[in-house]
Amino acid sequence: MNNKKDIRFTVQPQDLIWRGKAKERLDQLTMPHWALGRLMDLAIDLAGITRSLKPETRRKAVIVMAADHGVVSEGVSNYPQEVTVQMVANFVNRGAGINALAGQAGAEVRVVDMGVAGELSGIMGRGAIVSMPVGRGTANIAAGPAMTREQALQSIENGISVARGMIEGEGFDLIAVGEMGFGNTTASSAIISAITGKPAADVTGRGTGISDEQVHRKIAVIERALQVNRPVPGDGIDVLAKVGGFEIGGIAGVIIGAAMLRRPVIIDGLITTAGALIAWLLAPESADYMIASHRSVEKGHAIALRHLGKEPLLDLNLRLGEGTGAALAMNLVEAAARILTEVKTFAEAHVSEAVE
Amino acid sequence: MNNKKDIRFTVQPQDLIWRGKAKERLDQLTMPHWALGRLMDLAIDLAGITRSLKPETRRKAVIVMAADHGVVSEGVSNYPQEVTVQMVANFVNRGAGINALAGQAGAEVRVVDMGVAGELSGIMGRGAIVSMPVGRGTANIAAGPAMTREQALQSIENGISVARGMIEGEGFDLIAVGEMGFGNTTASSAIISAITGKPAADVTGRGTGISDEQVHRKIAVIERALQVNRPVPGDGIDVLAKVGGFEIGGIAGVIIGAAMLRRPVIIDGLITTAGALIAWLLAPESADYMIASHRSVEKGHAIALRHLGKEPLLDLNLRLGEGTGAALAMNLVEAAARILTEVKTFAEAHVSEAVE
Repeated sequence: MNNKKDIRFTVQPQDLIWRGKAKERLDQLTMPHWALGRLMDLAIDLAGITRSLKPETRRKAVIVMAADHGVVSEGVSNYPQEVTVQMVANFVNRGAGINALAGQAGAEVRVVDMGVAGELSGIMGRGAIVSMPVGRGTANIAAGPAMTREQALQSIENGISVARGMIEGEGFDLIAVGEMGFGNTTASSAIISAITGKPAADVTGRGTGISDEQVHRKIAVIERALQVNRPVPGDGIDVLAKVGGFEIGGIAGVIIGAAMLRRPVIIDGLITTAGALIAWLLAPESADYMIASHRSVEKGHAIALRHLGKEPLLDLNLRLGEGTGAALAMNLVEAAARILTEVKTFAEAHVSEAVE
Repeated sequence: MNNKKDIRFTVQPQDLIWRGKAKERLDQLTMPHWALGRLMDLAIDLAGITRSLKPETRRKAVIVMAADHGVVSEGVSNYPQEVTVQMVANFVNRGAGINALAGQAGAEVRVVDMGVAGELSGIMGRGAIVSMPVGRGTANIAAGPAMTREQALQSIENGISVARGMIEGEGFDLIAVGEMGFGNTTASSAIISAITGKPAADVTGRGTGISDEQVHRKIAVIERALQVNRPVPGDGIDVLAKVGGFEIGGIAGVIIGAAMLRRPVIIDGLITTAGALIAWLLAPESADYMIASHRSVEKGHAIALRHLGKEPLLDLNLRLGEGTGAALAMNLVEAAARILTEVKTFAEAHVSEAVE
């Protein structure tokens, strides 16, 4: 790997032969044709991703990438930065939204410190937390780049390494990505604006629930960040380094790592989708492995999903992040796999087909 | 109970005190306010329904009500009536869509013969099938009433009895309703037209996948059924008797039975929502216990849901029925319960709240 602009990671597209095999089976199931709609589309994706008519979904994890953002000094969030550490502790102590929803999905929560500014030593070793910091919080993007190009690459590589270890080393079948880090909707909106070309105002929302006045300030901060840094829209490492975040690079890396190993990866809300855009720039075929879980309240999210050509499965007014929407969608992914593996064909079940 | 038009079943509305208690807790969870959107709304409903901040969702079942419809002789379906028996056998043998999706939800499938026309003796006793037939298929609604008023009442009572047995006798916590019976989208569209006042053409879809020509015929059949029978829009028993079906009465009964015992009941597509409309006419407060799982491809479904004031949780182009959409939504109901019981408050987790 080098530091040039043409950095690309090699990912194979979905396998068309296996997509065809899945479609052939789904066409014959004991139900009116394609009566399970989007679940059947998803089943085809799973076959194309895993090259199998029996896609495994046994071991599941939500990887929660955490990091801090220098841009909070601009007043873009209504939580102080110390809360990142408190929330990471809450994840480890199983008290957060993602713990409940991952529990419901039968998935493990794996928290990765990609660059939290505060002191995590008190909670290290107490639970499923991995330490891979690239720095201790990014610099303020309104004043200059978030990180160096080397750090951006490192954050991607750390993400790939986490995915590889969990898939190859531990045998995980299905990965969802989540995040924690105050200020990260600001970085994500900046990334989405840079990559899609939409104005900052069109992709900026309320994050943790800021006021109208704060939204105006946040938009101005993002505009300044884009003006000061001039990220190159087609260069994923450049965009990540200039207006991104360590956890966003980690998310992009997890997506690329999962795609390299032909595993589906479920994306969550605004921040993980910003990471998905970075992954897509670095490995366009990685989009074939992304499953869009939900459409969040954050207005930039729908724009980012559309840019990736993804239609989300759920629309439940979620705006928490952490991977909560992705955890909810795990059930739908497993349901799609079951349709492929458990439902019988007309011939197998001795059921008469429709009269044309 | 009597045979007069003013038949009503007594159901208590949701408990406002418990809704308030749930809201108070949800307001304090370690996340931006109401960041889990519709899941939190659902959590409030669960508290109001069950009078508890720890709503149980341990034992779950999909009750699949099956029956035949004389109206198939009008050519409204592209499957012959024998397939109802074949599909009931498929349910019992665990080969259908609902088996896969109930399996994913950790729910049992309980099939109830409410009035299948064919011979079921070959599969009785082989699985989770209950025999409570009110007749052997309804009469052709295009020529006269589907059933007598006594049969309509009996179908409701059978449904209540199934729900009561499963909740009180077997300890089920969460019930979903599903159905099987060729011709039942025709009966359901007729019910929805009768109750909502919308023209047949607005509430009639392709059912199992019929052609444009067949849709026109189906609409004409429904118009004829409404003209011949003149169901009284506000009289649930009358509508059910004249243009309904035995399984649709059974579904209404299950909903009323679950509501009487303060259990949530998840409704599925067009047919179960037609049953829900009957339940609502007979016990208006039963709507407080209904959870709308999804919006199906059948165009009458959205109209029926709107009439009940229900916003569905999922929209995945489903049109299978059987209870498949309701089974998928069980995960969301359980997730909502977990948010209430597992996520910590700011105080419990020692996390700082937002700065206003």
